[in-house]
Amino acid sequence: MPLLGLLPRRAWAALLSQLLRPPCASCTGAVRCQSQGTRDLSPQHMVVREKILDLVISCFKRHGAKGMDTPAFELKETLTEKYGEDSGLMYDLKDQGGELLSLRYDLTVPFARYLAMNKVKKMKRYHVGKVWRRESPSIVQGRYREFCQCDFDIAGQFDPMIPDAECLKIMCEILSGLQLGDFLIKVNDRRIVDGMFAACGVPESKFRAICSSIDKLDKMAWKDVRHEMVAKKGLAPEVADRIGDYVQCHGGVSLVEQMFQDPRLSQNKQALEGLEDLKLLFEYLTLFGIAEKISFDLSLARGLDYYTGVIYEAVLLQTPTQAGEEPLNVGSVAAGGRYDGLVGMFDPKGHKVPCVGLSIGVERIFYIVEQRMKTKGEKVRTTETQVFVATPQKNFLQERLKLITELWDAGIKAEMLYKNNPKLLTQLHYCESTGIPLVVIIGEQELKEGIIKIRSVASREEVAIKRENLVAEIQKRLSES
Amino acid sequence: MPLLGLLPRRAWAALLSQLLRPPCASCTGAVRCQSQGTRDLSPQHMVVREKILDLVISCFKRHGAKGMDTPAFELKETLTEKYGEDSGLMYDLKDQGGELLSLRYDLTVPFARYLAMNKVKKMKRYHVGKVWRRESPSIVQGRYREFCQCDFDIAGQFDPMIPDAECLKIMCEILSGLQLGDFLIKVNDRRIVDGMFAACGVPESKFRAICSSIDKLDKMAWKDVRHEMVAKKGLAPEVADRIGDYVQCHGGVSLVEQMFQDPRLSQNKQALEGLEDLKLLFEYLTLFGIAEKISFDLSLARGLDYYTGVIYEAVLLQTPTQAGEEPLNVGSVAAGGRYDGLVGMFDPKGHKVPCVGLSIGVERIFYIVEQRMKTKGEKVRTTETQVFVATPQKNFLQERLKLITELWDAGIKAEMLYKNNPKLLTQLHYCESTGIPLVVIIGEQELKEGIIKIRSVASREEVAIKRENLVAEIQKRLSES
Repeated sequence: MPLLGLLPRRAWAALLSQLLRPPCASCTGAVRCQSQGTRDLSPQHMVVREKILDLVISCFKRHGAKGMDTPAFELKETLTEKYGEDSGLMYDLKDQGGELLSLRYDLTVPFARYLAMNKVKKMKRYHVGKVWRRESPSIVQGRYREFCQCDFDIAGQFDPMIPDAECLKIMCEILSGLQLGDFLIKVNDRRIVDGMFAACGVPESKFRAICSSIDKLDKMAWKDVRHEMVAKKGLAPEVADRIGDYVQCHGGVSLVEQMFQDPRLSQNKQALEGLEDLKLLFEYLTLFGIAEKISFDLSLARGLDYYTGVIYEAVLLQTPTQAGEEPLNVGSVAAGGRYDGLVGMFDPKGHKVPCVGLSIGVERIFYIVEQRMKTKGEKVRTTETQVFVATPQKNFLQERLKLITELWDAGIKAEMLYKNNPKLLTQLHYCESTGIPLVVIIGEQELKEGIIKIRSVASREEVAIKRENLVAEIQKRLSES
Repeated sequence: MPLLGLLPRRAWAALLSQLLRPPCASCTGAVRCQSQGTRDLSPQHMVVREKILDLVISCFKRHGAKGMDTPAFELKETLTEKYGEDSGLMYDLKDQGGELLSLRYDLTVPFARYLAMNKVKKMKRYHVGKVWRRESPSIVQGRYREFCQCDFDIAGQFDPMIPDAECLKIMCEILSGLQLGDFLIKVNDRRIVDGMFAACGVPESKFRAICSSIDKLDKMAWKDVRHEMVAKKGLAPEVADRIGDYVQCHGGVSLVEQMFQDPRLSQNKQALEGLEDLKLLFEYLTLFGIAEKISFDLSLARGLDYYTGVIYEAVLLQTPTQAGEEPLNVGSVAAGGRYDGLVGMFDPKGHKVPCVGLSIGVERIFYIVEQRMKTKGEKVRTTETQVFVATPQKNFLQERLKLITELWDAGIKAEMLYKNNPKLLTQLHYCESTGIPLVVIIGEQELKEGIIKIRSVASREEVAIKRENLVAEIQKRLSES
């Protein structure tokens, strides 16, 4: 994907400033935002998406994942009480008789429902599909109410941290492959988060609510998060301050070692389990050659209710970073974690299937790549047409139709104008404006002599070839280019 | 696609009998129907789908189409009064504040809305996506409430019948490419249908309702359709009988010529226009080499309201057909037509953009191919993994992780078991059951000697190679196979 390269600092600054504006502001020309907070995807969008999705899916397949799909809507009861504070944002279908249905909110809960319903105990699958959330597009900048998710998950009872480490490896492969610039993956563990809460004196009934607040730390300053916890969620100020000390900590495997010695955390059984697992995780990450991309970060909480173990979130860094300068966070582009209890919620007997997975934030990635191409002034071809069939003469429709049939039937991507008597200049201009590289030209003279002219649009050179060699000649030229 | 071949007569009979049963009856194992009339797609389904969609999309691209996407839901008002008698089957979203929304019912109306909204006057696009219809799955056999559509459309003012003929050419290319057996494309024109109604004495106010009845002729006998028209829709019996004479007529271009002489039809201006266009269409179809696949069929009406000109529908024929035997219709697998008025309905000033297009009935095709594979006992691989990393020894996880990293980083699709100490037999069995062709084996001895064993799963042959040649050797073997 030659489009995606590193940007100079100035271009990044321009790009970042655009990222922070709502996307509606940059909608121009072919695509308008619909008032309901969704949007059409133009051919230009689709070309970028196709390239990025191809890269993501081929990485998932490289790791042995199977494809899968679930319906756009689920029984409402399947989705309720799975997402924490965000549950209010679900799209419900109108009650037109039958069950109450809601549009899916992510791809994880439908996957868990699928595993339980079909009693699948082991599965490595990927799923690319749309999800819907009724967020206010003007508040949550850069987001639409319909968006694409790309998920990879490993379900099954395995030895600890091996699948978890593979998920992080996949995130690294995809983010490196997309050449989005430098990135960092923050890692934590729900058991460490909960252990930290317990150690700081958070009542257990408030764990999930406080977790939701902590999750906002990448968008809100600590003092605002602290205010929310104390004023809105009734946490004691001194408890909040104790949390405040922890959430500043981030580092490599040495921080894991350090936390083993922490007087409060080391007293908590759950936290110790989490730390043990993180230690093992870092060992595997080193073998995968990606340990330097991973940061143990105690401020990472992840908002969703269903996580039970390791959690992670990848952020892009401003690039290049000057010495001594704090890398600028341009937002999460991939995230995931372990959820060992979710499948059991759908099983009548509560049988658990441990799972770990990740989701690539492709919408954000699409947007970054599109903006980068704009900044560079890159033009994308929205069709793949290889050959155009033209004529300089009137009444040559029949010959053009015969000719293009030969090309199509040989698998060559070909177009012509849908006119009886188009002007040659119009035909050649169409090729130039749409990027078609070759033109085959047929006229009176060519017909009489049993030849065809092939014209290169770029060089404007024309050569005459025997009519019967047409397909072979075109295929030769296309394979050379 | 080697999976899709011709079937012997007996296998076809078995297949047909299955096609006529509701698909729920054949749901087994990994996939269950959800009660709301939708279903999950298992990895087995997805592999078949991916192959078929690849073929369809590459045909669309061969004809110069751009990709596009629209949201799953539209404003309810966008969709109302576009689909005729089927409009009641729309999924509405619950009113949670904001506009009233409905899930899209097809891809054509959103396309027309897109053209009007963005003032696009000319566009050749394809769109593959899900649509939703609240049909009763037990009544309409073989259909689900969520299904995939693959549309190709040409919008713009062009010389008559050139884009229309290309749509039929595309249908032929796709149906031939899928090797579904013999097929036939029925063609008619809405102006001929309306002209026929007028000539038979149908009051104009009943045109669309009677059109809907005629559309059922592929599923219902004439006497039942006649009964519906007379008893339910209040048509005079003698008018119904006159229609009955026409709808028996089908044939090639000679039938077009014959209808020009028909005493009633030839008096109707609209019908004459339709016949003129069909004559021209057949000329182009001959140049495309597909005229023998096309049948002018006066029973073809198409239920949707928005068609204004040529309409068509492809049906699979029982194959091979015995001499003198009527080919058995196994249902429509592709359809479309011209709709010159739809875009204008979304334009504030009513500016029209003529359109013609087609939709491939991929769900039916998926089902046919899946059943055929079952009949033949064909097994599909649901992953693409090329290499498995194994060890015969304990405590070799670290070496396996290093090895698999090398493979992944070289772009090789590789898997290993997520166990610290898996048994060699378990590892080899995994390769056999999932169809992985190569195993690389590392153990104490190999590590000491700096070698790796490569095992072919099929032949069980093992060779030792130098560790540093691993990636090159694997790539060589994969390119040879």
